[in-house]
Amino acid sequence: MADKPMSRRLILTGGLAAVGGAAAATGVGVLRARDEVVENQDEPIVVEPFHGRHQAGIATVPQGHVAVLALDVAEGVDADRFAAVLRMLSHDAERLTRGEAALGDTEPQLATHPARLTVTFGFGYALFDKLDLADRRPDDFTVLPEFTVDELDPAFVGGDLMVQICSDDVTAVAHAMRMLVKDSRSIMRVRWVQRGFRQTTPVIEPGATPRNVMGQLDGTSNPTTDELDAVVWRDGPDWLRDGSTMVIRRIRAEMETWDAVDPAAKDMVIGRRNDTGAPLTGRSEHDEPDFDAVDGLRLPVIAANAHIRRARLSDGRRIFRRAYNYDDQLTPHGIPDTGLLFIAYQSDVTTFVDMQRRIDEADMLNSWVTPVGSAEFLIPPGCRPGGWIGETLLG
Amino acid sequence: MADKPMSRRLILTGGLAAVGGAAAATGVGVLRARDEVVENQDEPIVVEPFHGRHQAGIATVPQGHVAVLALDVAEGVDADRFAAVLRMLSHDAERLTRGEAALGDTEPQLATHPARLTVTFGFGYALFDKLDLADRRPDDFTVLPEFTVDELDPAFVGGDLMVQICSDDVTAVAHAMRMLVKDSRSIMRVRWVQRGFRQTTPVIEPGATPRNVMGQLDGTSNPTTDELDAVVWRDGPDWLRDGSTMVIRRIRAEMETWDAVDPAAKDMVIGRRNDTGAPLTGRSEHDEPDFDAVDGLRLPVIAANAHIRRARLSDGRRIFRRAYNYDDQLTPHGIPDTGLLFIAYQSDVTTFVDMQRRIDEADMLNSWVTPVGSAEFLIPPGCRPGGWIGETLLG
Ligand code: HEM
Ligand code: HEM
Repeated sequence: MADKPMSRRLILTGGLAAVGGAAAATGVGVLRARDEVVENQDEPIVVEPFHGRHQAGIATVPQGHVAVLALDVAEGVDADRFAAVLRMLSHDAERLTRGEAALGDTEPQLATHPARLTVTFGFGYALFDKLDLADRRPDDFTVLPEFTVDELDPAFVGGDLMVQICSDDVTAVAHAMRMLVKDSRSIMRVRWVQRGFRQTTPVIEPGATPRNVMGQLDGTSNPTTDELDAVVWRDGPDWLRDGSTMVIRRIRAEMETWDAVDPAAKDMVIGRRNDTGAPLTGRSEHDEPDFDAVDGLRLPVIAANAHIRRARLSDGRRIFRRAYNYDDQLTPHGIPDTGLLFIAYQSDVTTFVDMQRRIDEADMLNSWVTPVGSAEFLIPPGCRPGGWIGETLLG
Repeated sequence: MADKPMSRRLILTGGLAAVGGAAAATGVGVLRARDEVVENQDEPIVVEPFHGRHQAGIATVPQGHVAVLALDVAEGVDADRFAAVLRMLSHDAERLTRGEAALGDTEPQLATHPARLTVTFGFGYALFDKLDLADRRPDDFTVLPEFTVDELDPAFVGGDLMVQICSDDVTAVAHAMRMLVKDSRSIMRVRWVQRGFRQTTPVIEPGATPRNVMGQLDGTSNPTTDELDAVVWRDGPDWLRDGSTMVIRRIRAEMETWDAVDPAAKDMVIGRRNDTGAPLTGRSEHDEPDFDAVDGLRLPVIAANAHIRRARLSDGRRIFRRAYNYDDQLTPHGIPDTGLLFIAYQSDVTTFVDMQRRIDEADMLNSWVTPVGSAEFLIPPGCRPGGWIGETLLG
């Protein structure tokens, strides 16, 4: 067996990314059969393309598991040293996502089942100051202001380099994280790690909306594949063209009080029926909500402070939600530490801020959710084979 | 739609449990089509039978995710009160595992995708004293002695009632845990929760051995379906017939030093090749190791202190490993808190203790793994429809 090399069949997923265009076009190279010797392994493995106009892990059909990592660059590190490490991390990500061991991988066998692994990099606000690159940071990129609802725990705030690792397999996430952290260590420290999960195929049907830990169908009115491009990607500055911004908010769900809310009131809070996900003015999940509809008493059917009304900006600007759930330790009395890793991609964080402001002012949901972590990152564009993520800024 | 009830197709898995006999026989009742109204849901759901001679979650083909919960009974609670709560928990488990909301379920929609959910209950040593039932505790059931290798953290030791929740979907685990904890609260406190994951289908092929976080194929020489019965189930005392014992050890993997070990030495430590899982005396994973084989220097090919030699008892007694991985927080320097939730089922904890003693005395693996948590539980038998887990002791 050992002397009969087997080629592995790589299966490219037919997800949003593939439909989306550019990423798929450049990613096709990954489809070629490779001649690597991988013993005991002739089953096909499913990979997401690493190369493309945009980074993977954004328009990618959400995988079941995520670990988001925030790293801080040590004092005295300059842009060149940072770039050298980022290049290595990018190279690791390129190999790991297609099921190959990273260079110097100490557990190479753990690389063979990436299960749609993606690795997405982002740059935090302070990084630009640390690297003397403040002039390259676009003016529209700011640290989120503090909102009234916030009860931020510094343990989940900020960070210089963000690494979002997604896969349908937790072992693949753990191994990728291990390799990336080891290769970042010479100049970076771990600030925080947040892990999450979401319902995915085969547990739910392909394309079905998953339910979050509060029990809601979450993601219904997200931009569709066709709408995504206009919502997510940036035009500039040059180095950020085809990049994006990411906001990650750790939002605790107050399950004790939420559980006490009766079902009809839960529907009111969101403006949608919890069971079907239909807007209160409609019959099925994907019906357009009618925000003007009134009931017999001339009261709006979707309340003025219902979440879906507050979360909609009047000028039509949108965000793309790619949220996960978290569920951590329980107190001795069985109170869970659970909620959403609310991850949003949008061309401009201002859109997120404006939306969160509207929510902050008057959203019934605020009574049952509390933001406890907050961070924002500029997401550089993807790269071609031979390139690396971040080269447009640091190359 | 709401007035057109749909029946849900329940698919019983063809796993170990089904092949195993008794569990499947009693579980067949679950296959019937039910007439419950579940809107927007006509896809088949996959369930593991709750009823059977043995509890589910042991011979069940391991699901991808686990949360093991240890609860402590409050002072002054007597056997009757405990029994009443256990009955309720059993009833919750029965409903949740077949995809129905628990009674009083506050997030009923989260119950619809159990993804092979199983709930397994076990009784700790001290529970019997607390409930004035010390005479019902079999003499062979003891708290594990402390071993030389142990560095136990009290946060992961002991517990009165153990609840092992497994599913292929983390959301299903989280929801089941939420309901079970809420229904236990009147008389119990949470002592610890430990969460784990393992590679499973479709990431690996059905029946393939998963790799653990140390990179090893882990589970190769576990008892087969045919061998399982003799290893796992008990004959008595009466109330424990068809039950078992469970040991859960939280074993930290010292990844920093393990990663520094060269591949050949890693193979030596276990006595098997890391890449193929084959014993050092064989060619493929399921070849029988030849413990007598010597090399040119008359040294044993599988070293005297190789893990697979130390973990084998000379009298042939065995355990059934149903282990998961854990991967928790990282230190700022990127040192992971990772390792095995080593879960073992065997008819008698003495078997586990004798095996762990041999490992403790001389096992090369000890240099890279550290037990930090330890608990043991008596696993009562399964129950028939209308019954509950624990009734043979408390009914
Ligand atoms: C734990 C916190 C939150 C929960 C449980 C939650 C839940 C939901 C649910 C159930 C819906 C309706 C279904 C859907 O379209 O997905 C929804 C819609 C939405 N949410 Fe949230 N949400 C949370 C926080 C936020 C935050 C912080 C933002 C942005 C700042 C946000 C933005 C949106 C948007 C844009 C929509 C779509 C509204 C529309 O129909 O136009 N949500 N959310
Ligand atoms: C982190 C700790 C441990 C690791 C990483 C580990 C890993 C392994 C590996 C790789 C194998 C060979 C493949 C297989 O048959 O599964 C093995 C075999 C085995 N291990 Fe462990 N193990 C650990 C702890 C333990 C403990 C605590 C026990 C019991 C007290 C145990 C009992 C066994 C047994 C019975 C076998 C099969 C030996 C045979 O071939 O008869 N292991 N283990």
